[in-house]
Amino acid sequence: MRRYLGTALVIAVLIGAGAAMFYSRPSPSQAQQSSGAVFNPDGKMKLPTGYREWVFVGAPLTPNALNSGKASFPEFHNVYVERKNFDAYQKAGKFPEGTVLVKELVLLQKPTFPDGSQQAPSGRGYFEGDFNGMDVSVKDSKRFAGTNGWGYFTFGHHALPYEQTAAESSIEECAGCHIGNVAKTDMTYVQFYPVLRGSQQTTAKR
Amino acid sequence: MRRYLGTALVIAVLIGAGAAMFYSRPSPSQAQQSSGAVFNPDGKMKLPTGYREWVFVGAPLTPNALNSGKASFPEFHNVYVERKNFDAYQKAGKFPEGTVLVKELVLLQKPTFPDGSQQAPSGRGYFEGDFNGMDVSVKDSKRFAGTNGWGYFTFGHHALPYEQTAAESSIEECAGCHIGNVAKTDMTYVQFYPVLRGSQQTTAKR
Repeated sequence: MRRYLGTALVIAVLIGAGAAMFYSRPSPSQAQQSSGAVFNPDGKMKLPTGYREWVFVGAPLTPNALNSGKASFPEFHNVYVERKNFDAYQKAGKFPEGTVLVKELVLLQKPTFPDGSQQAPSGRGYFEGDFNGMDVSVKDSKRFAGTNGWGYFTFGHHALPYEQTAAESSIEECAGCHIGNVAKTDMTYVQFYPVLRGSQQTTAKR
Repeated sequence: MRRYLGTALVIAVLIGAGAAMFYSRPSPSQAQQSSGAVFNPDGKMKLPTGYREWVFVGAPLTPNALNSGKASFPEFHNVYVERKNFDAYQKAGKFPEGTVLVKELVLLQKPTFPDGSQQAPSGRGYFEGDFNGMDVSVKDSKRFAGTNGWGYFTFGHHALPYEQTAAESSIEECAGCHIGNVAKTDMTYVQFYPVLRGSQQTTAKR
């Protein structure tokens, strides 16, 4: 009987392993490459991928027409965070180490009015045109100790394709503005992202 | 021996089933309830859940100030689609049966200028305030044969919480406007969603 029980166990393990392999396969969309913060040996960051399927948190818009033609970012700023870090923020109210925030810039569609707006079936307003750049911030308290634990990277402010790698931006280029938020919101602009901001998400039917 | 093999198979199946249950457990974020199109027996649709973690496709904005104070939707329109149907669209260029598009309305933050804009560190512009309503469209060619295969539902145009169920909106309320797009874009406004529109997504580093 011991021999048969041995056989039984071998069969059991094989079936179990087979089932485990089958059920643990990534779904088709998980299988698409998605990357957060990946650094080359020289310290340059690799262009994140898959970010348009991360969790969207907000889309600030500062048109050139409202900024004397000199907006730093005259496009929609579509902001995304990886699901695991979004979930962590929802639980703890702060971003964990390794969090990547992606801000993709999206041009306004062919404006027809001086304020940059256009006429559409739903009314006069602002609508997303072509992708036009990508900025990224990464929380890594050791690597970016000099800028309150966040590093800033620009993969181009232009049409696709973006740069494949980026060196850390200077304090003047990025961190300088974010430092104004260090005490209240940990170098981020969560005050503009309703799903992260304040307490209202606790009542949201997510 | 036959008896022992029988025992072996029972053990094997039990272990296999256990492994399958273990490995098919949803991840913590999948475990959060997420629903697409769920209808009650009376035909009312249930409020979708989990949609803020679906794939974001665009955020049109038609402020009241640019529409003589009478915009139909004076808020940001954050539009989301379920990942599986987003993936299907990317492959086939059309939405499969069962697709749900969620449009969540988000108020502008405390405007400080007549055009509804405010001053922020990144410039003068529009920033997302409080959630203020939810409209949903569902593709179901049989159920909504009278409106080109899409049904439209409004779960409230007001602050949270939204209604838990909604009856199909009248053609005058919703479908009437979308019918203008039936030939080109299957009743949707994908022309305003860069990640779905045209061919540029083929070159995007997603």
